[in-house]
Amino acid sequence: MTRSSFAHMRCSIARSLDVIGEWWTLLIVREAFWGARRFGEFEARLGIAPNILSQRLGRLVAHGVLEVTQTSQNGKAMAYALTDKGRDLLPVLVALTQWGDQHEALPDGPAVTLVDRATGQPLGPLRLSTRDGQPVAPRNVTVLPGPGALDDERERLEALQARRAARLAAAQAGASSDPTP
Amino acid sequence: MTRSSFAHMRCSIARSLDVIGEWWTLLIVREAFWGARRFGEFEARLGIAPNILSQRLGRLVAHGVLEVTQTSQNGKAMAYALTDKGRDLLPVLVALTQWGDQHEALPDGPAVTLVDRATGQPLGPLRLSTRDGQPVAPRNVTVLPGPGALDDERERLEALQARRAARLAAAQAGASSDPTP
Repeated sequence: MTRSSFAHMRCSIARSLDVIGEWWTLLIVREAFWGARRFGEFEARLGIAPNILSQRLGRLVAHGVLEVTQTSQNGKAMAYALTDKGRDLLPVLVALTQWGDQHEALPDGPAVTLVDRATGQPLGPLRLSTRDGQPVAPRNVTVLPGPGALDDERERLEALQARRAARLAAAQAGASSDPTP
Repeated sequence: MTRSSFAHMRCSIARSLDVIGEWWTLLIVREAFWGARRFGEFEARLGIAPNILSQRLGRLVAHGVLEVTQTSQNGKAMAYALTDKGRDLLPVLVALTQWGDQHEALPDGPAVTLVDRATGQPLGPLRLSTRDGQPVAPRNVTVLPGPGALDDERERLEALQARRAARLAAAQAGASSDPTP
């Protein structure tokens, strides 16, 4: 199956996945975060075929996630570094690490630990908060149409929300009319 | 190209991607978060071929990310809901949304806004902190071998860290010996 591009989708998740939502791509970004720079380092760490690696590195450079920091005399890219855009992927990697540590754990515990270089303390779970810093419980996160929503997207989101509200109301009505023995 | 499984990899990112690191899979999870339950809702929202959708939903059920909440008389799955494991993917979706909003933005602004249902306030950027709640600057996040690291993984991580330290030292030496005009 060939994959269709998600770049046209009006959703930031889909558009992000179009750039980084491919298995090798995120693992390449992971290696760059943990210090890999040279083509051979990525190759050795990932056990990836050179032609696939070259293609994926090129895609990350084209999208401004990596930049070429060293080229050979004939102009071939030899070493790469994360751009600011690439470094901004850290929360995605942290979120994936924490979910995997919790739900797809290795028997002996995680192979790596994320720590604060300044204090050596391990990172805690990512926390959701409002822009003014108030904590938000995950079950309280909801989605509203944004400034870029088209009419049909707005309608679909509102329909989904209405069904969700109806389910909650039904669940509450069921709970309150439930005869207690 | 067929994809090899990452389930054997000793990295939580790779193991997470093995479950959810496929474009459609994360978009299905997204729809479930935003309220979709019935097969037809996922199909209509994603514009995905029914056979692919069915396969991906089945994989998410097999991995405990979704559960079947309604079946037809002949036992066919009709409706799905997120499990606790599935709901724990919210930080991954929030991280992808925020990166896409910032770096792959639509001209009119985001099509959706994530808000706190309780207060209506938009979510702010995900923040990294240590387990005791101290904020951590993204550039200070580093990786150490964890309890499950094998010897060769430990060596590779330490070699990467040593090269990174050498680069930083070289950059600092270069900066301090840089003749100021």
